[in-house]
Parts: sequence; C-alpha cells; structure tokens
Amino acid sequence: MPGHGASPQREMRRRNLSRVLHAVAEQGPCSRAAVAARLGLTRTAVSTLVEELLRGGLLTEQGTTPPGGAGGGPGRPGTALVLTDAGPCGLGAEIGVDHLAVCAVDPRGQVRARARLESDGRDSDPGVILTRLRTLVDEVAHQARALELRPVRLAVAVPGLVARGTTTVVRAPNLGWYDTDIAGALAGAGTGDRPSAGAEAHRTAGGKDYRTVGARKGLTAGALSADALPLLVDNEANLGALAELWLDSGRVPRDFVHVSAEVGIGAAVVLSGDLLRGTRGFAGELGHVPVRPDGPRCVCGGRGCLEQYAGEIALLRAAGLRADGPRDAAFTALAERAATGDTRTRDALEEAGTALGIALAGTVNLLDPRAVVLGGALARFATWLLPALERELRERTAAPGVPPTLVISGLGAEGPLLGAAHAAVRVVLDDPLSHLA
Amino acid sequence: MPGHGASPQREMRRRNLSRVLHAVAEQGPCSRAAVAARLGLTRTAVSTLVEELLRGGLLTEQGTTPPGGAGGGPGRPGTALVLTDAGPCGLGAEIGVDHLAVCAVDPRGQVRARARLESDGRDSDPGVILTRLRTLVDEVAHQARALELRPVRLAVAVPGLVARGTTTVVRAPNLGWYDTDIAGALAGAGTGDRPSAGAEAHRTAGGKDYRTVGARKGLTAGALSADALPLLVDNEANLGALAELWLDSGRVPRDFVHVSAEVGIGAAVVLSGDLLRGTRGFAGELGHVPVRPDGPRCVCGGRGCLEQYAGEIALLRAAGLRADGPRDAAFTALAERAATGDTRTRDALEEAGTALGIALAGTVNLLDPRAVVLGGALARFATWLLPALERELRERTAAPGVPPTLVISGLGAEGPLLGAAHAAVRVVLDDPLSHLA
Repeated sequence: MPGHGASPQREMRRRNLSRVLHAVAEQGPCSRAAVAARLGLTRTAVSTLVEELLRGGLLTEQGTTPPGGAGGGPGRPGTALVLTDAGPCGLGAEIGVDHLAVCAVDPRGQVRARARLESDGRDSDPGVILTRLRTLVDEVAHQARALELRPVRLAVAVPGLVARGTTTVVRAPNLGWYDTDIAGALAGAGTGDRPSAGAEAHRTAGGKDYRTVGARKGLTAGALSADALPLLVDNEANLGALAELWLDSGRVPRDFVHVSAEVGIGAAVVLSGDLLRGTRGFAGELGHVPVRPDGPRCVCGGRGCLEQYAGEIALLRAAGLRADGPRDAAFTALAERAATGDTRTRDALEEAGTALGIALAGTVNLLDPRAVVLGGALARFATWLLPALERELRERTAAPGVPPTLVISGLGAEGPLLGAAHAAVRVVLDDPLSHLA
Repeated sequence: MPGHGASPQREMRRRNLSRVLHAVAEQGPCSRAAVAARLGLTRTAVSTLVEELLRGGLLTEQGTTPPGGAGGGPGRPGTALVLTDAGPCGLGAEIGVDHLAVCAVDPRGQVRARARLESDGRDSDPGVILTRLRTLVDEVAHQARALELRPVRLAVAVPGLVARGTTTVVRAPNLGWYDTDIAGALAGAGTGDRPSAGAEAHRTAGGKDYRTVGARKGLTAGALSADALPLLVDNEANLGALAELWLDSGRVPRDFVHVSAEVGIGAAVVLSGDLLRGTRGFAGELGHVPVRPDGPRCVCGGRGCLEQYAGEIALLRAAGLRADGPRDAAFTALAERAATGDTRTRDALEEAGTALGIALAGTVNLLDPRAVVLGGALARFATWLLPALERELRERTAAPGVPPTLVISGLGAEGPLLGAAHAAVRVVLDDPLSHLA
C-alpha cells in the first residue's frame, strides 16, 4: 500500500514503477524507448525500472517489435514489453437482483476465470446470498490459482447505495437490504487453496459455465481473516462507469455521465477520469430525479421519479409483461415484441426513452458532460429508446457548441462485473512495489 | 504568471510565498510561528519568506499579538502579520440586466472603491453597455489609485453562458447578447491614471454612490492595449458561488450547489473547493432543468423549465405584478405584499419554492452535495420560499445519513460582484512573485 512508512526515495520509486506499468497498459506491447518517450524519462531510468518489473514478474517480454513499429526506435527491432498474464490478479463480484457473478482478471486486463449463479436476490437474506457469493468467489480463486494467478483484491458491485469509504450497503431496495455490512460474510473469501462450499448453491439454467467444486475449506474464521483479501464494495453504476472508462477509452471520454439501467436505474458521474462520489457516497441517483412531479409514488418516498417510467418493473408492466418472474425471459419477450412492432411494447419503450431524455436533459444542463453513456440491461433496447430520448435531449439542452455525444455501451450488463474485477487488479498497477514477486 | 520559464527553485519559492499569503488570509492577523505551524514549515523558512513579502509590500506588520493569542507562541507577544491594504488590488465588474456595478478589493479582501449605474440592459447593444461599463471601471480604478492601490486584474460577471477559457458571452438571453466577445470593448479599461468618459452614462436614482468624473483619457487604443489589465469573464452564478466559498467559509462547505436566482436562474457546482465548469463551460444551468415537462414553453426551446416557475418574470406575473418595469420597485412591492399576507403573492412564492425544490431534489440526488446555498435576488424571499422548497427536498431525497444543509446566502445580490473582485485580487495571493513591489 502506498505511503506506509515510505521514505521519499521509495515513494518516488513506487510512483515511477507505477507510471511504467500504466504506460505499458495503455500502449499495449511496446519498447523501452516508447515508454521513455511517453513518460519523459531517460532510457536509462526506464531500463532500470523495467528490469525491476521484469524480475518482479509484473512485466514480461514477448517476440520482437517490428522495425519502427509499436512505438519502437526507428529501424531497430527488439523485444516488446507486455504486462504479465501470470502472478497477481483481481477478483470482481456482482450481486445482481437475479444472479451472482464472479470473475478473475489478470494485469493484462483479460478475464481468466468466471462463474455465475442464478440466484433470486429479491427481498433476500443477506447471509444466504453472501454465503452463495463466497462459494463462487472461492471457486473462481481456485480456477485462477490453477492458472498460476494469485488474487490480490476482491471488489464487489452491489445494486444499492454504499456509504463512502466503507463496505456497508446502506440501502438496496431491490434486494431489501438496509445497513448491511458485507465484509464479515466475505472475510477470507478467495484466499484459500481450494474453494469452500459453505452454502448449497442453487444452480439453474444460467449456471452451466462454471465447474462445480465442493470441498469444504478447513480454516477457522481467525485464520481466514488473517489472510483476508482487501475488500472493495461499490455501487454497480460506479463500477460500470469505470469499466467504460478503462475498457472503451476509444469511444468514452474522461468526462461523462453513465446511466446504468437494471432493475433500478443508477448513474455515475465521471469528471476528468475520476468518479464523483458525493458527500455521503450517494451521487448518481438518477433513478430518483423527478420526471413528472405529480406522477406515481416511488419506493424512495418521492413521486414521478425516473424509475417509475424507465425502471425495469415499470417498463415491463407498461408493455403488458409480468415483472415478478425471471428477468431473462421477460426481457427476451420484450425484445421480441419490440422487434415485431407490437404497439404496446413500442409505446412502453418510447415512454421510457422520453423519461430518460427528460432526466438526462436536466443532468446535461447541470453538468455539461462530454458524453452520456447508456449502459446496463436497457442498452440492448437502444433502438427503440433512442428516438424519444434524443428528441427530449435535443429540445431541452439547446446550448451552443458541440452537444454531449450519446454512446451506447458495448459492455452492457457486463459492465459492473468487469469494472469490479478491473478495479481489483488495478491496485497492482497503482502500487507495484507491494506486488513484486 | 506561474511557470513562464521558471526554474524549479523559483517555482518552489513562488509556491511557498503563495502558501504564506493564503495562510495569513485564512487566519487573519497572526504570528510567524502560527504560519509555520499551519504550513508545516520551519520558523526559519517562514521568516525568510515573510521578509521577502514584507519588503515586496504584500504583507505588513501591525501592533502586537496578545500573549498566546492569534495563534502566536505561548506567552510571547510580537507583531502580527496582515495582508497589505495598499499595493495591488482587484477590480470586479457586474453586468446586470438593470444595472452595472464595479468595485475594487484590496489583498485583505476589503472593498475600497465602488460605483454603480442603473442601466437597462434588456435587449441592449453590447457596445453601448460595455462603453458605460468601461467608464465605471476607469472611475473605480481612479478612486483606487487615489488610495495608493494598483489594479492588477479585471473580472466581469455576466448573466449568461461564457465559453470556457474565453472572454466571449455565448448566450445571455436576458440581455439579448449572443456570441459577444467583451474583451475588445474593455481593452485598456482601468489602466489609465484618470477615468475615460467615452460614453455618457445614464445616471439615475441608483447612481448616487459614486463620484462623477468626466475627463477623457488621452491614450490611443494601441497604448491602451499595451498595458491592458488581464481580463477574466465568467458567469454570475459561478462568481457568486466563489464569493460564498471565499467570504462565508464558516457556513459554506467546500462541496455545494449554489443557486443564483436573478432574472434568470443559474447555479454553480463547487466540488472540493473547485468550480465544476463543464466541457463547454456551461455547467450549472439549473434554470433549464425540466420541472413540469409539459409546462410552458421556455426561451431555451424546452418546456416547463425551472425558470418558468421561479424565474423573476414568472414570479412577478404569478403575483400579479408588472415584470417589465424597474426591478427594484417590483421586488419591493412583492416583499410588501408577501409580508402583509397577500394570498396571490404567497401562492406565487410557494409555487416558486415548490419548483425550486423539485429541481434541487434532482440535483441533490445526482450530486450528493454537502450544502445547497440559495443566493441572488431570491435570497430575500427565503421566508416564503423555504417551506415548499424544503418539503420537496425532504420528500424527494430521502437518502440515509445527514442531508445537505440549506444555507441562505448572506451576500445575496452582491455575490457576483464581490466574487468577481475577489477572483481578480486572488491572483496576487496565487502568484506573489509577479506582484512584489
């Protein structure tokens, strides 16, 4: 961890090692010379740093760079630096309303292991859900270790408010969780050699893509917490936004509003590449922006919130579909009816797009972002949502200059899980000294 | 200016001199020991910096600090350091819809000279208005020089959108100005020894508090621009927010939303003490957040924007008062009727408060600020606006934890002018090396 009793020299070395790793991460395979040019450091200084990272197993060399290619010096072929795909890895987990998912990402950013479990989280007992999640985490950690990867951190995406700087879910209405600290139930998850199986996981149709491992882990709670992975808990919209920023920087700029439409509607505000968290950690509650102030009563206590028009339940009901059954089936039905031109479905999607446009118009007028990114489950309905959404935005945000770009997320519903895993592995890039072999 | 060909040593010296000045500005009269303690520097280092600032005329010494008082060492009386009230000063100007105002602020933060002119800016010719403003600026600069103050910068607050990093008013609907660069008309303003009188200023009732000076300045345009004051142009809500931050830090935290209700309704978002400007410089357009999406058509092209309910014209009309006459008279009438319990007036204010509450609820849900500051002309109607405003905020932002504080600005309509002058003089604190005598 940065700064624990660090001397200025060690701090400088840590910072420069981190800069080298980030430069390689951003450029892809590249020469020492390209790194030096990017960072404005001498080639000698970069060579020393690179040697340390090679020895420590965070960088490796591959093949040769083509003459003049990949940012190398003119005409001189050499080996290319790449981040390791062994050694440390990050574990990301997602607590969804109808599923749990976990994956492991290596420093190169590749997903190397994953598991998913259909699991009804509505009005659920946190203890039951978190025990299931722990099993999945242990399973993915075991898979990762079999690939010579070593988990260094676990990040969990939750569909609710997380108090800033804590692991406490303050409010997740769609799970029915209030003031739930998830650290205890996950203490020690992912640290053992073999997965625990503290709970009998309910494995349904969606659970086919992972291996079933059932050996019980024999460690005591004390031993578990002694080697506990550092745990990060964050709102799913925040982690989804970071995934867009980190994984789709070609389309997504560093100032944007990310809408994450799932059962609830969340958003995240990214300013100069940093998340706006808000005083309590609750920024981004787009779902509770008033759209029609005298509209239907919302669970939040307000009236006519965006969620009452564009939230999943409101949308399915307006389209005449059941909102309390399996989500996948309902969304598939919704997509099929929309594709065949069903009027009621199209009207429901247009009303949702209108409400999104009204709420986003207010957001754009307040924040003047460079882009609005539409992510989450609703991204797949963009074709039918966008005409109304764009009309409202256009009519209600008529400021001069280039208006914000509207980007449809390429990650969709995967965003929060990938964001969590990347947030976990980026600690290696940010603080390499703690993770050298 | 920072960094122009500066050596690292010079840059470090500049930064430390600036830190000393800011420490004295924040603490008030204080000892060298108190400055050293605050900055974590040695007393020797602080003494060297202080001597340079005393010689350069940016600090002075006064009286003695009481034993143990004003942050001095225990029991040892000494002289107290204060910022100078001579030498450099900042000029602030405000282009209002019905007036122009200018003031000079010394490094201590005191207003030392001011002038005001009633001037109808609605659908006005920018050339005419800016020539009037230039006369006022020259007049205040002349007053300041008579007090041994030397203007170093001019900052202008405008009721409209300013393109980021420019002096161009992109859109000020209430003035009828579009794409108006105000730098040309103000080039050289405030730099001469005596005020110019290029325009015959219309002096009406409100114009009694300044001296009439009419001597024409004999310099050519070329000579003027050669010694032009650096010019800063910003939206009035932004400068009003900075005034709250700088002048009322006891009540206003470093993360807040500032509502500036004048003819139009603007807002500014301050995060960790910095203004959020937005990609184009247009952040804070609270007046065009949709409140009732099917409501009356707005000048912006939208419908049911906040300004249609809580803007000055809407409010006066709803109260049955003329909105096209003198503003002061209309507001006085509004206040009198509200005080006597006139139902129509009270209803109009309640409707405005409701609309403000709905728009601010969306803002709070998005940004989770620590406080909302109500400033501008509407601050004086807080008694009648607040019940509805607070009701809407309470019902629509029911997140856990401490909700944002609602602060009524103590600066009111003075905020933007004071913010401009302080923004102008703070360049001295930020970059003392350029302003040593």
